[in-house]
Amino acid sequence: MPDNNHTNITAAQLGTLYLLPSTMSDASIDRVLPPHNAEVIRSLRHFVVENVRTTRRFLKRVDRSIDIDDLTFEVLDEHTQRSDVAAMLAPLLRGESIGVISEAGCPAVADPGAAAVAEAHRMGAKVVPMVGPSSIMLSLMASGMNGQQFTFLGYLPVERQARAAALKEIQRRVSRDNVTQVFIETPYRNNRLIAELAQQLPGDMQLCVAADLTGPGESIVSRSLKEWAHAAYDYGKTPAIFVVGNNS
Amino acid sequence: MPDNNHTNITAAQLGTLYLLPSTMSDASIDRVLPPHNAEVIRSLRHFVVENVRTTRRFLKRVDRSIDIDDLTFEVLDEHTQRSDVAAMLAPLLRGESIGVISEAGCPAVADPGAAAVAEAHRMGAKVVPMVGPSSIMLSLMASGMNGQQFTFLGYLPVERQARAAALKEIQRRVSRDNVTQVFIETPYRNNRLIAELAQQLPGDMQLCVAADLTGPGESIVSRSLKEWAHAAYDYGKTPAIFVVGNNS
Repeated sequence: MPDNNHTNITAAQLGTLYLLPSTMSDASIDRVLPPHNAEVIRSLRHFVVENVRTTRRFLKRVDRSIDIDDLTFEVLDEHTQRSDVAAMLAPLLRGESIGVISEAGCPAVADPGAAAVAEAHRMGAKVVPMVGPSSIMLSLMASGMNGQQFTFLGYLPVERQARAAALKEIQRRVSRDNVTQVFIETPYRNNRLIAELAQQLPGDMQLCVAADLTGPGESIVSRSLKEWAHAAYDYGKTPAIFVVGNNS
Repeated sequence: MPDNNHTNITAAQLGTLYLLPSTMSDASIDRVLPPHNAEVIRSLRHFVVENVRTTRRFLKRVDRSIDIDDLTFEVLDEHTQRSDVAAMLAPLLRGESIGVISEAGCPAVADPGAAAVAEAHRMGAKVVPMVGPSSIMLSLMASGMNGQQFTFLGYLPVERQARAAALKEIQRRVSRDNVTQVFIETPYRNNRLIAELAQQLPGDMQLCVAADLTGPGESIVSRSLKEWAHAAYDYGKTPAIFVVGNNS
């Protein structure tokens, strides 16, 4: 095990930063979170969160007996100044642990929580990631495509030329390198994106659309773009994640 | 919701393919799996697994009352012929569901289980991915690096020239595109890989080493390669995952 005592205060004296996934969609807690997560949540008094309102609701769903008014919440969202993050972690210096919770799913992956993690490492505090739902991982598992190598691209660019270049790069990475491509889209554009992919990428390439993952309307469809071109579908505004690759 | 009736048999008549994560390391079930997973496991009689012995042990840990002798196991590993996979899914055609379980962590991502998923989609069966531990996702969360865009590379090439090219590409993708790079290494080479990264990549680049994730010896260290170059560490043969990127 590595020697991590590169700060004056040792990790043992500092609090721990717990990365706590929350539910996505309307999934029940039992469907998506290990029991240990609730135990950790009950032990914490301080939270750094993307959205206070959704976090309060989430905590109440985890355990109705939690006294929300007894807790402190610091907001870390896309408007937060990077220089304000260290102060949010002050409880760690007093030996008190903090939970990081994002709007939905796993924190610190595609949200501002990563800044809190980076800061905790800088302080020499212990960081403990907890298990929970990740739409990236669930869609990749359910796609049936190569997961030995994959890329998560976040949102595709909206601007026309940049978007065309991104689609070309997706095709190149799949055809040439067999690297599966995972990306997201603003929900109201889901249908348009599928039509666009079916029109602009090779018909034998596979597209998996995973909608409302872990939710009551979960729908996972994986087929060739040739098949998508002739299929009837309407994802409306359901949150979805897209996987393009070669079939296994 | 999409129209998925592109086969003669509808998904409603077919069994479901459940993708069931297993524990990594010596983690307790409660630490890494939602209670719902055990309910699904108890409802299944058929399993497609990477390793029968470890799966039997895992099922017993999930629920000691499960009668293992009552279950069927089909092995889907790296030696399996692709043409043999469809026959393994025969229970689905009789309306019976199947669980896919890999050696450790989430199935069908970096293991042969993906072929079963692809085949299930071809049959028009429902595929349901369940939540569980993924070393890729846990290490990315805990790294404090950009997770808006990331790539999982699997194992780095061993051959000298190919490896040098892979390291160059890692550097390029981080520096130029800010795409975080996640990869694994055969455990006994962990220390050597860290030294190699510290020597060959820019010192201001960040390296997170996440070892024994979810296990009793979990250790997550994220610091600059300059700091790694002067640090004392010994990961021995502990399974580890590596994340290289820019700090958030």
